[in-house]
Amino acid sequence: MQATQGYAVKSATSQFEPFKFQRRNPGAHDVQIQILFCGICHSDIHQARNEWGNSTYPMVPGHEIVGKVTAVGKDVKKFKAGDVVGVGCFVDSCRTCSSCKDHEEQFCEKHLALTYNGTEMDEKTPTFGGYSSQIVVDEKYVLSIASKLPLESIAPLLCAGITTYSPLRHYEVGPGKKVAIIGLGGLGHMGVKLAAAMGAEVTVLSTSPAKEKDAKRLGAQKFVVTKDRKNLEPLANYFDFILDAVSAEHDPNMYLNLLKRGGVMVLVGVPEKPFALQAFPLISNRRRLAGSLIGGIKETQEMLDFCAKHNIGSDVEVIPINKIPEAYERTIKGDVRYRFVIDMSTLK
Amino acid sequence: MQATQGYAVKSATSQFEPFKFQRRNPGAHDVQIQILFCGICHSDIHQARNEWGNSTYPMVPGHEIVGKVTAVGKDVKKFKAGDVVGVGCFVDSCRTCSSCKDHEEQFCEKHLALTYNGTEMDEKTPTFGGYSSQIVVDEKYVLSIASKLPLESIAPLLCAGITTYSPLRHYEVGPGKKVAIIGLGGLGHMGVKLAAAMGAEVTVLSTSPAKEKDAKRLGAQKFVVTKDRKNLEPLANYFDFILDAVSAEHDPNMYLNLLKRGGVMVLVGVPEKPFALQAFPLISNRRRLAGSLIGGIKETQEMLDFCAKHNIGSDVEVIPINKIPEAYERTIKGDVRYRFVIDMSTLK
Repeated sequence: MQATQGYAVKSATSQFEPFKFQRRNPGAHDVQIQILFCGICHSDIHQARNEWGNSTYPMVPGHEIVGKVTAVGKDVKKFKAGDVVGVGCFVDSCRTCSSCKDHEEQFCEKHLALTYNGTEMDEKTPTFGGYSSQIVVDEKYVLSIASKLPLESIAPLLCAGITTYSPLRHYEVGPGKKVAIIGLGGLGHMGVKLAAAMGAEVTVLSTSPAKEKDAKRLGAQKFVVTKDRKNLEPLANYFDFILDAVSAEHDPNMYLNLLKRGGVMVLVGVPEKPFALQAFPLISNRRRLAGSLIGGIKETQEMLDFCAKHNIGSDVEVIPINKIPEAYERTIKGDVRYRFVIDMSTLK
Repeated sequence: MQATQGYAVKSATSQFEPFKFQRRNPGAHDVQIQILFCGICHSDIHQARNEWGNSTYPMVPGHEIVGKVTAVGKDVKKFKAGDVVGVGCFVDSCRTCSSCKDHEEQFCEKHLALTYNGTEMDEKTPTFGGYSSQIVVDEKYVLSIASKLPLESIAPLLCAGITTYSPLRHYEVGPGKKVAIIGLGGLGHMGVKLAAAMGAEVTVLSTSPAKEKDAKRLGAQKFVVTKDRKNLEPLANYFDFILDAVSAEHDPNMYLNLLKRGGVMVLVGVPEKPFALQAFPLISNRRRLAGSLIGGIKETQEMLDFCAKHNIGSDVEVIPINKIPEAYERTIKGDVRYRFVIDMSTLK
């Protein structure tokens, strides 16, 4: 065991404070990683504050991790000291269920070892996340990073990137497809970049007229302000695919009629409350409403390679670790373009 | 023009009464059909009573029509006098839009000429449905009936049959697939027969323990009473496909968790009010909620041929035309196993 520096909350209402804890020494299959950058995901806030009701403390959040390998176990084949790597939302899974065998570990039917606010495969040892100096992870759950972009822009790909990439791929977005992205935030801005790189025509549907310039810079062809519902009328039956990336409360019904026959709208944000779904827009034009959850390790690697090839990173604002509370407040207000990333060299 | 006997309501609150109206003489492409049987669909009741707010009067309902060809226009090729034929929920469409070209006329993007409570392609001439002695329909919208079963059991296939067949096919139900049918009524009982004939393992989820025997007779392997939610627990992540055939108010959320990874639940009933959808069951396990609406002419013919091959008809209770009001009340109460069909020889 080795001492690790972290930043933790001790309860749903406490502030972050420096926290020392023990990480395991790298076992035969483990990779030890010095964490360089960690993105701030909206789910960090939900969990730090126990808004989903499943938090355990002390909690070291963070699952958008980029770092450098400092040591590897004796049987590790994929990595060596000095490699630049990533860790996403989970660090282990059962490896034997049908989901794991299908490379969709995120749906592991036995136990998914979440990167933080979870437990290792013994279902007892708590996991601590990326707001820390280092992490030790089995090589199978570590991602290779080949991108030439600044590493701080890569960190958010590990959650925001794969969360949007996976449904775009699953529903075969590509050239000739018309895609709408609802909400231009941490997830939405990645959705725009990725869908555009896949060759789709991208439209951003947003409540903020001020975001039009950014939307177009990120790759959108069209930008529609949704506050006035009349703006949506010309888009009826228009889209093949809609990504609803809004986690604040909102009404997805108004977007269903924008799907063409057989089109699909995918929810990736999780509003706290259910919403009143109307069945008729689904029945007419045989539309679909679906969910999607991050992605498996294989697909996450594919996404990172796709982003490296297309020079795609996240638009980020880098902060020192003591600015987490302020960053949380600004994230909630949508006052960030588009992801806060913690520079872990500021953790002493 | 020729005089036609019908049964009509004159307003949302009036009773049915005999009604004489004019049908067009068969044009070059038309088929004139003596109606033998017409099923009573729940949507007949909604529309007769203007519960969807789009009713026009006088209204002759009925879109589950089976009859005999009495005359054909000079260019008709598919039919001749004496043929047994069917007419379903629509009698014409634009024939040029992408939906029509894809044999999915039910989603016609210009104008769908509904069999009743609609208008012909001129968007003016009202259409009158199957509670009548005859109907004149373009041959392209007339179905061939090859079944050896009693014709009264075939009539409901034209709506209840295709409404359930289409999503079962669209989502590739077949051997090795686990299917749940929610609600054993007019639609549900057809869903059970069809899914079983396609080779799937069928489970009926019902609030009525009394229907277990019927469910098994119709082809279900399992029957689960849903009033006690504990009964559903062993079925978590079990089904590939769930058909929600309930049009009464109910909560579809409780069934979403029964879908396995990537599974789909299809709504074919239209409850009057929206329901509070929880996003999380969709996001976890990448589930889908979809709608489906009857089927195109090509698929309806395929369904009729499938039913003929597998000796599938609807379980029906035949009534004389003056019993419509009573049949409506009993349909609303679910007191029919499983479809009322009007014997049109009783219309004088």
